[in-house]
Amino acid sequence: MDIKKVAKDTAKVLTSYLTYQAVRTVTGQLREANPPLAIWLSGFSSTGKIQDGEAYLQELLQENKELAFRVITVREYLAEEVAEYLLEMVRTGIQQANMEHRRRYLGKITQLEIADPSFSPEQRTD
Amino acid sequence: MDIKKVAKDTAKVLTSYLTYQAVRTVTGQLREANPPLAIWLSGFSSTGKIQDGEAYLQELLQENKELAFRVITVREYLAEEVAEYLLEMVRTGIQQANMEHRRRYLGKITQLEIADPSFSPEQRTD
Repeated sequence: MDIKKVAKDTAKVLTSYLTYQAVRTVTGQLREANPPLAIWLSGFSSTGKIQDGEAYLQELLQENKELAFRVITVREYLAEEVAEYLLEMVRTGIQQANMEHRRRYLGKITQLEIADPSFSPEQRTD
Repeated sequence: MDIKKVAKDTAKVLTSYLTYQAVRTVTGQLREANPPLAIWLSGFSSTGKIQDGEAYLQELLQENKELAFRVITVREYLAEEVAEYLLEMVRTGIQQANMEHRRRYLGKITQLEIADPSFSPEQRTD
């Protein structure tokens, strides 16, 4: 298992996702301040190219540099702010989800046994 | 800007992505040890339901609990190991990407000016 490769790929996904969240934030602000520009940015961002955050920003810089720098600034801010909560949330989230998956699975087994104490699919002979 | 909401959504995306990476790891291991099971897991995982990591694991638990617990274990391991690198990579990655976007943009402006010192799109009259 190549942990560094996984970390690198994960960082790229995370960066692109924060770009998407930054675009959402900027679009939300524009909806108040400049509705036509909000519509333009929504349209520009809706073609799937936002899947790759850096390529998206390259293109946006060509089309509207002010908006691009605004997205860049919000993204940097989000990365700093979100980081504080993020890792702890993912770690404890995964631990809790895993416990939940195990608990539900064990719960199902136990219910089967309570409903029919002799139930044991592998060993039943009667 | 609701930072906690962004952090929560980001954590969910990240958790699902780590589930996907765990499935990739397990599939890779199975390709050596049990090729038919590797093919089965690839097929099971390829229908897009892996986009939601928890829903995917719920279903996998029903179909093949051993595989599900293996994925769960690998995912927990990845989350612990990747965390160390991840935040620093995302933070410095975004800072570097932003500098690069700014540098390229400024580079273009400067090249235009060097190529034609009188170039100034807004003011040109000749």
